[in-house]
Amino acid sequence: MPKQSHREYKDFREPGIRLTEPLLPSIESHRSDWEQPRLYAIHLFDKAHATMLTEGGLIPFKEGVAILEALRQMEQVGVEKVRLEVGGGMHSGEKYLTQLLGEEVGGRIHLGRSSGDLGKVSTRIYTRDHLLIVMDAVNNFRKALIVTAKEHIDTVMPGYTHGQHAQPTTYGHVLLSWVSALERDFERLWLNFRHVNESPAGAAILTGSDFPLDRSLVGDYLGFAGVEKNTIDAILSYDEQFETLCALSTLYMNLARWAEDIMLWSTSEFNLVEVPDRFCGTSSIMMQKKNVYVTQWVKGAASDTVGGLMTAFLVDKDPTGLPILEHQYTRAAMTRSFNNLSRDLDMLIELVPALKVNKERMLESAGAYWAQATDIAGMLVREKNIPWRTAHQIVGIMVRLGYERGIAPCQATKDLLDEASQIYRGEKAGVTTAAFESALDPAACVERRTLYGGPAPVEVSRRLHEYEEKLAGDLPYVEQAKNQVNEGLQRLERAISNIIEKSNNEG
Amino acid sequence: MPKQSHREYKDFREPGIRLTEPLLPSIESHRSDWEQPRLYAIHLFDKAHATMLTEGGLIPFKEGVAILEALRQMEQVGVEKVRLEVGGGMHSGEKYLTQLLGEEVGGRIHLGRSSGDLGKVSTRIYTRDHLLIVMDAVNNFRKALIVTAKEHIDTVMPGYTHGQHAQPTTYGHVLLSWVSALERDFERLWLNFRHVNESPAGAAILTGSDFPLDRSLVGDYLGFAGVEKNTIDAILSYDEQFETLCALSTLYMNLARWAEDIMLWSTSEFNLVEVPDRFCGTSSIMMQKKNVYVTQWVKGAASDTVGGLMTAFLVDKDPTGLPILEHQYTRAAMTRSFNNLSRDLDMLIELVPALKVNKERMLESAGAYWAQATDIAGMLVREKNIPWRTAHQIVGIMVRLGYERGIAPCQATKDLLDEASQIYRGEKAGVTTAAFESALDPAACVERRTLYGGPAPVEVSRRLHEYEEKLAGDLPYVEQAKNQVNEGLQRLERAISNIIEKSNNEG
Amino acid sequence: MPKQSHREYKDFREPGIRLTEPLLPSIESHRSDWEQPRLYAIHLFDKAHATMLTEGGLIPFKEGVAILEALRQMEQVGVEKVRLEVGGGMHSGEKYLTQLLGEEVGGRIHLGRSSGDLGKVSTRIYTRDHLLIVMDAVNNFRKALIVTAKEHIDTVMPGYTHGQHAQPTTYGHVLLSWVSALERDFERLWLNFRHVNESPAGAAILTGSDFPLDRSLVGDYLGFAGVEKNTIDAILSYDEQFETLCALSTLYMNLARWAEDIMLWSTSEFNLVEVPDRFCGTSSIMMQKKNVYVTQWVKGAASDTVGGLMTAFLVDKDPTGLPILEHQYTRAAMTRSFNNLSRDLDMLIELVPALKVNKERMLESAGAYWAQATDIAGMLVREKNIPWRTAHQIVGIMVRLGYERGIAPCQATKDLLDEASQIYRGEKAGVTTAAFESALDPAACVERRTLYGGPAPVEVSRRLHEYEEKLAGDLPYVEQAKNQVNEGLQRLERAISNIIEKSNNEG
Amino acid sequence: MPKQSHREYKDFREPGIRLTEPLLPSIESHRSDWEQPRLYAIHLFDKAHATMLTEGGLIPFKEGVAILEALRQMEQVGVEKVRLEVGGGMHSGEKYLTQLLGEEVGGRIHLGRSSGDLGKVSTRIYTRDHLLIVMDAVNNFRKALIVTAKEHIDTVMPGYTHGQHAQPTTYGHVLLSWVSALERDFERLWLNFRHVNESPAGAAILTGSDFPLDRSLVGDYLGFAGVEKNTIDAILSYDEQFETLCALSTLYMNLARWAEDIMLWSTSEFNLVEVPDRFCGTSSIMMQKKNVYVTQWVKGAASDTVGGLMTAFLVDKDPTGLPILEHQYTRAAMTRSFNNLSRDLDMLIELVPALKVNKERMLESAGAYWAQATDIAGMLVREKNIPWRTAHQIVGIMVRLGYERGIAPCQATKDLLDEASQIYRGEKAGVTTAAFESALDPAACVERRTLYGGPAPVEVSRRLHEYEEKLAGDLPYVEQAKNQVNEGLQRLERAISNIIEKSNNEG
Repeated sequence: MPKQSHREYKDFREPGIRLTEPLLPSIESHRSDWEQPRLYAIHLFDKAHATMLTEGGLIPFKEGVAILEALRQMEQVGVEKVRLEVGGGMHSGEKYLTQLLGEEVGGRIHLGRSSGDLGKVSTRIYTRDHLLIVMDAVNNFRKALIVTAKEHIDTVMPGYTHGQHAQPTTYGHVLLSWVSALERDFERLWLNFRHVNESPAGAAILTGSDFPLDRSLVGDYLGFAGVEKNTIDAILSYDEQFETLCALSTLYMNLARWAEDIMLWSTSEFNLVEVPDRFCGTSSIMMQKKNVYVTQWVKGAASDTVGGLMTAFLVDKDPTGLPILEHQYTRAAMTRSFNNLSRDLDMLIELVPALKVNKERMLESAGAYWAQATDIAGMLVREKNIPWRTAHQIVGIMVRLGYERGIAPCQATKDLLDEASQIYRGEKAGVTTAAFESALDPAACVERRTLYGGPAPVEVSRRLHEYEEKLAGDLPYVEQAKNQVNEGLQRLERAISNIIEKSNNEG
Repeated sequence: MPKQSHREYKDFREPGIRLTEPLLPSIESHRSDWEQPRLYAIHLFDKAHATMLTEGGLIPFKEGVAILEALRQMEQVGVEKVRLEVGGGMHSGEKYLTQLLGEEVGGRIHLGRSSGDLGKVSTRIYTRDHLLIVMDAVNNFRKALIVTAKEHIDTVMPGYTHGQHAQPTTYGHVLLSWVSALERDFERLWLNFRHVNESPAGAAILTGSDFPLDRSLVGDYLGFAGVEKNTIDAILSYDEQFETLCALSTLYMNLARWAEDIMLWSTSEFNLVEVPDRFCGTSSIMMQKKNVYVTQWVKGAASDTVGGLMTAFLVDKDPTGLPILEHQYTRAAMTRSFNNLSRDLDMLIELVPALKVNKERMLESAGAYWAQATDIAGMLVREKNIPWRTAHQIVGIMVRLGYERGIAPCQATKDLLDEASQIYRGEKAGVTTAAFESALDPAACVERRTLYGGPAPVEVSRRLHEYEEKLAGDLPYVEQAKNQVNEGLQRLERAISNIIEKSNNEG
Repeated sequence: MPKQSHREYKDFREPGIRLTEPLLPSIESHRSDWEQPRLYAIHLFDKAHATMLTEGGLIPFKEGVAILEALRQMEQVGVEKVRLEVGGGMHSGEKYLTQLLGEEVGGRIHLGRSSGDLGKVSTRIYTRDHLLIVMDAVNNFRKALIVTAKEHIDTVMPGYTHGQHAQPTTYGHVLLSWVSALERDFERLWLNFRHVNESPAGAAILTGSDFPLDRSLVGDYLGFAGVEKNTIDAILSYDEQFETLCALSTLYMNLARWAEDIMLWSTSEFNLVEVPDRFCGTSSIMMQKKNVYVTQWVKGAASDTVGGLMTAFLVDKDPTGLPILEHQYTRAAMTRSFNNLSRDLDMLIELVPALKVNKERMLESAGAYWAQATDIAGMLVREKNIPWRTAHQIVGIMVRLGYERGIAPCQATKDLLDEASQIYRGEKAGVTTAAFESALDPAACVERRTLYGGPAPVEVSRRLHEYEEKLAGDLPYVEQAKNQVNEGLQRLERAISNIIEKSNNEG
Repeated sequence: MPKQSHREYKDFREPGIRLTEPLLPSIESHRSDWEQPRLYAIHLFDKAHATMLTEGGLIPFKEGVAILEALRQMEQVGVEKVRLEVGGGMHSGEKYLTQLLGEEVGGRIHLGRSSGDLGKVSTRIYTRDHLLIVMDAVNNFRKALIVTAKEHIDTVMPGYTHGQHAQPTTYGHVLLSWVSALERDFERLWLNFRHVNESPAGAAILTGSDFPLDRSLVGDYLGFAGVEKNTIDAILSYDEQFETLCALSTLYMNLARWAEDIMLWSTSEFNLVEVPDRFCGTSSIMMQKKNVYVTQWVKGAASDTVGGLMTAFLVDKDPTGLPILEHQYTRAAMTRSFNNLSRDLDMLIELVPALKVNKERMLESAGAYWAQATDIAGMLVREKNIPWRTAHQIVGIMVRLGYERGIAPCQATKDLLDEASQIYRGEKAGVTTAAFESALDPAACVERRTLYGGPAPVEVSRRLHEYEEKLAGDLPYVEQAKNQVNEGLQRLERAISNIIEKSNNEG
């Protein structure tokens, strides 16, 4: 905590200036704890703005130097710590400087700025930085899935629709379907990153300033890739925040779907995979329980993210600029979701390769509930050149007879097919036992599906390269974005050092 | 923090029991900070359950006494403080007792319970207590509105629809329309209170226990009005939580609507009311600004509450019992909303009587934009016995002519009406100047509306009594509910004291 | 379609009156097809209002008679048909009357009314009538569940939490947990019915009328139980519509949860119930499939209802009276949900008693995955007077050993328990084989749970009476409400007949 | 309606095949009316699939020709009409062909397909086509806004935040802020278009087929730009539908915000713009009313779109493949939103240039409520080299004095500033009258804001070119996409013609 200056900081809301009463304590405004996740970004903006003001001669050089030195001094103690203690939220920089150096110096930092751009700039920096974290995690998850899929290219398992056994596929094929969705998630996050990575700084609240602020310079110092070209839009549009929460919600609902899959596969009845104990809890009463925790975290946080998106939409159903303070609720929702997502993606990255895959049970299950039936009909079409629908109906009858008589697929013979064919069209199917048995073999079902994108190991191997290439192509986007951000921030530090050095030389 | 006991507490999830690995730190489970708002309720349940076990002889008397004494001892230090420090969340009681007294004693408190009823019981106690707070606040707000309405029974102001001037009404009439909605809000809260005020205790996770737990006794000790009659429903239904968030969302959206009204009325252009400075902020750049803060708080928190409701619905779109941990997100949403609502209702209760009502401007505005036009047509119908639609069309033409020629209502004469009538039906309107002027007088418009529920001061006075009576009728519900809760809790304390006393006597 | 009258109906929006341009065709306003579900209610309001105007002498008796006769004449052709053809939406009555009888007569019906009360009155009548339908269906569903539960009072099945086997319960106990939730749903619907069953008629758009409309009489004629006591609230509050959608969403999400249960129980792996074929589809490609359709309908419509609630909240986040036309989207959401709910409740009422319950599989499954473990620990506590937690940990170790060694519950002996006890506390458990086996028996587990609300058949039998009594107590509410509505409508018909008769007598 | 064939079409769900009971009528499945908006797309898929089967020799050439000829024949009558009449929904093609040509021919079209890819392919074609429509409309709206902005580059108007006068800006600057948001909307729509414009055809339900379907060929014939590389993802991921509704919701909420602006500006009190009569309604009771309808349509439909997004998220909170039929509710939501959006964007494109802008009132209002105050402080900083905060506080006091004494900005002189300065720092401000008056001139305030993105006419002119260039750069994306789609469809028609021609030659 900086020592008190000669003159007490006069907050701009102080009674006796524009207003006559102190603010109700319960209307907590400009609170540092609300801004906590973004205090580091406010600090960056304070530095970049002060540097630009000093370089442009918009504030006296001496005062500019004092401000910059004081802000660096704050970093020694800890930016978040000092700003939380000094209070003032977005205006903690001005408050700190004024307490330390008096209004004569500290009162100069806010020239040409507004709470408007303080809020937007810090939210964008925060969002940009967290999108980079999430994109990294998404790509790491893609990698983990691709690696695991490779190991399970021939792990036959049942595919389900409507909750019922549909057709055999492989675990590798399933995992790659997850990667496909994550590829789209990456592109959504990236588009949002592009929109967020434009600087609103210098737009003040909606018209910028009558001082010749160099918005381009500040944007560059803050690591932004460009500058918003309309000052109203820069501050009073919030669609980029809807977009952030849309991208996070969509990603999270994908994760939640797979979490539901894992929970279902982990039931005693399905028993296809087992989640390692470190991701699980047990019960304080039912000691036999092994409850899969990680998936419930994911599902719950996904639900909360969608709830936050709804909050964001409701907040902004109003004329332009009417909701301002309401956006703290949007920001809180974004913060919750980013925090949860980092936690959950990291857990999933660890979980997927660690899942114990019950291959035997998978294969057995893939053939136990007539998921091969499609292929019997396909075989009939090929062998007998009958229409698909005719074959379909014959096999439909066969399966019904099987259920009625308690004949499992492993017990069925071509006689049952003959009987069904007789019922449907008055003649036997007339296929060979070999053809019938091959059709019934789940592994063979999978191997036959060599069409583009299908589950046949040979085809999955072909596609794996595309997944790897796409990932390899996406990684540089994130790396270059990080570099672009970091280089801007480094230019800022150099500029500050230059100013201070110049001051020392002059002094 | 209690001193360590001879033997370390063995958490039920400890590796080497059912599971083999320590839980991943990021799957933070049984965390006391999540339960913070409900720790006091968990403490109550710990006491009531231990009392019942002791009274029923389900645990040895001596150990029961030790448990109850230790729980009372915890209260000396501070329940929340101790439980936050000891950790264990819902199981902080068992953890504390085990650390203090060893597993031989502490390991007995959880007999017949589950995390399931710990979570449900504590959430219900928390919700019940906060519903009582909200109902009190709603009723106080009703009272403040009724009192203020009385003062403005003849404060004529414009009524708006589609954002346009509709008809004159009074500020008192408007405020009573708010009370009407709050009456329904009270009933929704009350219904939810009734549903929440049933004890799930003893239902464990879904089947209760094979020990003869006295659920009725525990429910009574916890101040519940009854006991859930199905143990599955008691724990694994969550519709009462949807209902809570529905009731809070609906109430909050009513408040948000009125917040929007106040913001609109407070614009420089409308200028109908002025919000006292203590509810307002100004700008760090635009020092002329007086921004109404209180209303934005209300609107934002209303949006967040609806978002929380959506979270709750998403969390539970699953088979029964599948989402368990996910409910922390529902509980977090409820906690946020209850906290915000208490803050905001208290502010509104202070705000409404403190609003500076610009009576002159209200009256002027009520007559400046043809809001009286309906009454000119009504007058025509009465005076000339023509159909409503004919009169309506004539006056429609008259208003259009007024706008086209820049004739304001205060400048209009019956000649304009005659001209319009001539255009529509080829003959003059033929009314007297007195009739025309009376129709044009906004205060007279209001006075004429003496029908049931209308804005005429004489009618509003009549209805005021109904509002007062309804409020007077609702207050005892809350009072009796509070008494019922408190009496249960007092019986619990007496029972504990009796047990300890008996132990002392025996000792 | 009525034959054209001598003079064309002049719509109140006609260019040349207030406005100068015809409305853009794409801003479709006052369209009868939007009002289609509520046209019958608009018709009722037309009749009740015209009757009141005539009885009160607010329009000439002769014209009143003509209006009422024409409205009855419309009924001969079909109210919906005529009003769809004549167009005009809420104003189809006036349009029809004017085309038939000229503005001189038809132009009189709208005296003292507004689109505002036409919309609110017709929506309330529609909602009230559909709430009655839904409440009937909810009660029929309760009855079907109670009857079915009775048959399954001793059908032992596994209970699940976190998707894992928790403890044995019975199918009857499960079904009664559904009834408990429906009891609350009924109360929510009933509260909404009470709020909706208040007449807004005569409130016009917000201030009523300067004509002495008898609002009480019209309310009574429309079958409402009371009259809204503030004309602004009557029209411009929409919380009763939020409440409707909240009640429907909550009910539907309960149904969706049970639909998820049924889908899970119907998987080949769980195989606890089988849904009769008439509720199922198959696949156009996978002929073995039996896809449970009914449950997906329920789940989808539940999702859509919650979406509609979100729409409703968004529509009204605005100052009072600003959103007016937007409410068509709220009304459309309500209509969709009521239609879906009627369909789905009727299907569920048929489904539940028709479900084939696989009792053998249920019992086997209840004991196959250590769901009995809680009772082994309970037995240890009782037999050996050790703390619950100690017993819990011992059995936890035992189950882990069972899994590690592939010992299923049916193969386990007390030796395994001894071994676990030895590991945990250095001594054997020391229980008898009889005690161990009794603890392991799922049916015995259930029978031991005789505490209030528990699954023991003897206890479920006791509670069944409460469910029946609660249902018996709720039924008269709906019946009396229907009677109250119908009696009002009958008084209206008698009043109209009296007027016409009087006219005939006078004529 | 095609004439009945010799043998009745055997629906694949017919009792006696796999299932034993007819489907409940209320579980309406495979209904053509639900598919109505997508029947044309199903038809395209029928043709492309049959062409590929025929070309690949997967069905006999003769039957392939018969199928293709029959499908072309259907087009003579009308695809939608025939398919609605024949019923069968997604399977209306097979049903039509079977009725016309018997199962021997018609039963061959479904080879290798599933309801799964029928649904996904037709939804993607529908969505793709409607995204193209929406993107065109968005770009046309951008053009209309840019053109109108040019005309209002120096139309000074007040900017608002918190609903209060903030700073002067121009109407042109405001309109360009809208274009900025629409630029982002375009990019969101485009990304979704790219994701949707990938072919799922041939993926059947999740594993494709054991027949060597040429997925690439079918994708090309349907005008898709590529083929989904994983058959599970192609059918059972729905994130591209979330993304569609996210993009539409975000766009619509932008439109709704501007609709709120227009409604506010159109109030009698603000009176900044007037909406032409053709976009407005009046009232059936308050004939003076001119209610802005178009904006309420926009706001309501925006709310409904967000509601639909919530529906979509809820529908898919389930394991992969469990919700299938539920997606009809997602599709219905998408259809509603696309229809509304086309209507509303077209209206807004007409509205914006037609709005009557009240320039005088705008200018007057921009200076009437101290929106110039920021510039007085800025002037003080420049003239007197005092810190911003000091200047800010002085002017804050000055404005308060102005309000307290009833001094409007146009009446204020530098004496008031001197007095305020004296109060704050014990000395006068000491600025010239010229400087004070220039600071007070709203037009000068705007002219001074020449920083990048600011409202100064000279700067807005500079930026206008960027808006035009960005638009010019985006237009080709849509054009090329349309071409790519159309060329694929043309290749399909040529392929069909070739087959038929070849058949004729061979015949």
